Amino acid sequence: MRKQISTLLLIASFVLSGIAHYTHMNAIVQFILSAIAVIFVAGFLGRATENVSHYAGQRLGGFLNATFGNAAELIIAIFLVKEGLYDMVKASLTGSIIGNLLLVLGASLFAGGLKFKVQKFNVSLAGLSGSLMIVAVISLFVPAVFLNTHSITKEDTDTLSLIVAVVLIVAYLAWLLFSLVTHKDYLDDVTEDSEEELPHEHAPAWSRNRAVSYLVLATVMVAFVSEWLVGTLETFTTQFGLSELFVGAFLVAIIGNAAEHSAAIMLAMKNKVGAAVEIAVGSSLQIALFVAPVLIIVSSFMSHGVMDIVFTTIELVAIGVSVFIAKSITQDGATNWYEGLMLLVVYIMLGVSFFLV
Amino acid sequence: MRKQISTLLLIASFVLSGIAHYTHMNAIVQFILSAIAVIFVAGFLGRATENVSHYAGQRLGGFLNATFGNAAELIIAIFLVKEGLYDMVKASLTGSIIGNLLLVLGASLFAGGLKFKVQKFNVSLAGLSGSLMIVAVISLFVPAVFLNTHSITKEDTDTLSLIVAVVLIVAYLAWLLFSLVTHKDYLDDVTEDSEEELPHEHAPAWSRNRAVSYLVLATVMVAFVSEWLVGTLETFTTQFGLSELFVGAFLVAIIGNAAEHSAAIMLAMKNKVGAAVEIAVGSSLQIALFVAPVLIIVSSFMSHGVMDIVFTTIELVAIGVSVFIAKSITQDGATNWYEGLMLLVVYIMLGVSFFLV
Amino acid sequence: MRKQISTLLLIASFVLSGIAHYTHMNAIVQFILSAIAVIFVAGFLGRATENVSHYAGQRLGGFLNATFGNAAELIIAIFLVKEGLYDMVKASLTGSIIGNLLLVLGASLFAGGLKFKVQKFNVSLAGLSGSLMIVAVISLFVPAVFLNTHSITKEDTDTLSLIVAVVLIVAYLAWLLFSLVTHKDYLDDVTEDSEEELPHEHAPAWSRNRAVSYLVLATVMVAFVSEWLVGTLETFTTQFGLSELFVGAFLVAIIGNAAEHSAAIMLAMKNKVGAAVEIAVGSSLQIALFVAPVLIIVSSFMSHGVMDIVFTTIELVAIGVSVFIAKSITQDGATNWYEGLMLLVVYIMLGVSFFLV
Repeated sequence: MRKQISTLLLIASFVLSGIAHYTHMNAIVQFILSAIAVIFVAGFLGRATENVSHYAGQRLGGFLNATFGNAAELIIAIFLVKEGLYDMVKASLTGSIIGNLLLVLGASLFAGGLKFKVQKFNVSLAGLSGSLMIVAVISLFVPAVFLNTHSITKEDTDTLSLIVAVVLIVAYLAWLLFSLVTHKDYLDDVTEDSEEELPHEHAPAWSRNRAVSYLVLATVMVAFVSEWLVGTLETFTTQFGLSELFVGAFLVAIIGNAAEHSAAIMLAMKNKVGAAVEIAVGSSLQIALFVAPVLIIVSSFMSHGVMDIVFTTIELVAIGVSVFIAKSITQDGATNWYEGLMLLVVYIMLGVSFFLV
Repeated sequence: MRKQISTLLLIASFVLSGIAHYTHMNAIVQFILSAIAVIFVAGFLGRATENVSHYAGQRLGGFLNATFGNAAELIIAIFLVKEGLYDMVKASLTGSIIGNLLLVLGASLFAGGLKFKVQKFNVSLAGLSGSLMIVAVISLFVPAVFLNTHSITKEDTDTLSLIVAVVLIVAYLAWLLFSLVTHKDYLDDVTEDSEEELPHEHAPAWSRNRAVSYLVLATVMVAFVSEWLVGTLETFTTQFGLSELFVGAFLVAIIGNAAEHSAAIMLAMKNKVGAAVEIAVGSSLQIALFVAPVLIIVSSFMSHGVMDIVFTTIELVAIGVSVFIAKSITQDGATNWYEGLMLLVVYIMLGVSFFLV
Repeated sequence: MRKQISTLLLIASFVLSGIAHYTHMNAIVQFILSAIAVIFVAGFLGRATENVSHYAGQRLGGFLNATFGNAAELIIAIFLVKEGLYDMVKASLTGSIIGNLLLVLGASLFAGGLKFKVQKFNVSLAGLSGSLMIVAVISLFVPAVFLNTHSITKEDTDTLSLIVAVVLIVAYLAWLLFSLVTHKDYLDDVTEDSEEELPHEHAPAWSRNRAVSYLVLATVMVAFVSEWLVGTLETFTTQFGLSELFVGAFLVAIIGNAAEHSAAIMLAMKNKVGAAVEIAVGSSLQIALFVAPVLIIVSSFMSHGVMDIVFTTIELVAIGVSVFIAKSITQDGATNWYEGLMLLVVYIMLGVSFFLV
């Protein structure tokens, strides 16, 4: 009964939001309807991910979720690149990274920590992901420093951006090889074993095929609803006088990461904090090592010139401090509610600063 | 007998220093007398803290010490704020943070390490305190970067400073809730248990009530003597041509932290290195998360305008490198004399640099 | 038989390279011959080091190797200082530090990781070396920040540089005291014990005295060949239009560290990853804490004025990010091929950036 009501609400909010979008209703009505739709669609995605993760193992489940969640962001960003809105693209990439590392991870650890005193997970994965995030930050940071301290031609900047993009994609593919093939067992979550001893508590609701189909369907629905929502933002936010930087880096990122957010919190509250960390950090890694480089390469085939890899100082600072504090908190493999709160505090700090600029 | 002599010296040096202060003797005489008084008063405070910590547990004892030690600094700083000497306030806050993390912690680990080959302590607390120090550094660093790269009105700067101040105080109160209530057991020092097996060696000299009364009395005496000493500094140092930045960040901080310094070294030499780390790091945390924000809020009620949270570049660098090296050294929960030496080396580097500027 | 051929090739390549150098042959011929000679000579040094390390223990073996490897670099740098080429000296010091931390360590972990799934080593040493590298970075970073934000006279800059140099040398001597005397056992590699159970596999080929004599001989040969090679670089590289910064920081450093490189990879592939880390990190430490300060002090006795300690922004960034990522990767005491790859990725990033500047 409760299940049927939530299915009904999911379909109703999705259809209503779609109607509002395609009939060009009032922007505020569109915004509210699509925001409501996101909540239900993201909830659906969370349930689907959880079911799939039962068959695929916690970590692969987390990885799938991150991949699917970022598919929506990648599609939206490609449209922005096509229109040459490079600053907006970089702001939303920045927002997505800090949103995952601070808001998604922070809310997950906080919510999970209120329920469980100390939550533990496989420290090998956290250490490696943290090192890889640092490599990503260095790759964004070094070109910016070199270009700010030396006069380099636009051509050399483009060359540097494309080389860095290719190197990052190679590093990402090697990471997939490492984490899914050569060292799969090594990184498997330590808590996974203990859960397999309790099959009754976590029995999957759907069959394997159904779970995978629903995961695909949910991701497609999230992509649609996210796009409808983003479409309303410009009109909507100009009425409140918010800067495009703030909108790109915070509103777009929060809504775009709603799926990861919802899934990660749900997992943390079921004491699967390893999977929650994997979603948040994995999603950030994918943005930095895959989505950003792909966008740079895509831009070189379009009409507005190569999108360079040079982020602004405040974007770099925001990404750098987020990686630094997230790494510091996850590296011991044990989390609690206060660590979640610290991440949220840094997110609020950055939010207030971006808002006032 | 030995105990009576030290009590006599404590009272005598305190009274003499008070007489020198209130009868406006020669500044150098005042300086020497108050400096001597500080040594005895701080020793008294150390003994009182140690006694109280027997009843309260090592970590709470360390926390009490940090709180009482910083009470003096807070009072002095409020007088400086009242007179609008905001640069001097920030220099002394900077000096207090780096003094605790480098000088107090360094001297404790060095002295303790000469006596014991390797000293161990609860790594959970060190990890969390380190993360919290990073949050504090980020909170000081982000506004400075945003204000240096964008033109922001004085009003927005004040708003940002006040918001950051409130967020930091909330984070500090949540830290107290976490460390003293919800996760008290989790953070308790691992070495504490082993000591309880040896009650005879560490029997407290005073009763519970007496210990607490003496702790309060000692703190009040430290506050008085510190203030007398600081009062002599301006006259005293101008004769030697030292810059106010150097005086604020080094002399004031060294003398203001004499109590923590003395207590921490004493504890480290008794192999209670966990309590020593707690004093040094706890005191830094309190400066950054409590004293600094309180001063910003207090300044908004006074006549010289809001004291903004924007520290100078060299102050931020000094705080940043101190937190970074202290975190790196304490994060494995084991210390030795060389780690203490490294902290002292960084302190000397910063001292020489500040001196030459 | 195989042994005699390699001995023959070693002598032949060394003699041919020497003839080419002293008869002033064509620069490209000189370059190729000396580069070939370096491969064999470095291989000889690697074998000698391995033999000595059997008698001296892994860690002391690693230390000896780092010392001998840097002897060549120190001699070359003193000649550069004598000619007043301070920028070239700093570029090659930078290149040597990042070359050791990224290229040598990265290639070792990658090669070792392809053969062994996870390689472990004593985490105490890695943690301490990491902290010491941070102290070294701070010592280079702080003077640069102070001098860039304040106007300081040339005299004060010289004073600051000399004081920092003396403090660093004291820190280095204390480190030797700590690691070789007071805490030798504490830092001994954990894997060493397990290897002693397999004496037959690792039986030394040479007697103790022979091994030490060969180590000295090999080091002298490396120094000669390195110098011949470096002598050809200027003529050789101008034909390809490479900047002096790139040549100093990459080509000179790669060739100058060939010995460490070869020895470290060889050790990692024999699962002695602790010794490989010790070579790479130990060599960096020696450059920062011993070679650089000695050069500053030496410069004060020569005719071109004191060489200050102020590195350029991009040199500091390169050193800083190298230390940061190397520390992040080594601090858990376990390595794999992907961690090696990450170090190499950062090295390529820096290389491309230096090349384009």
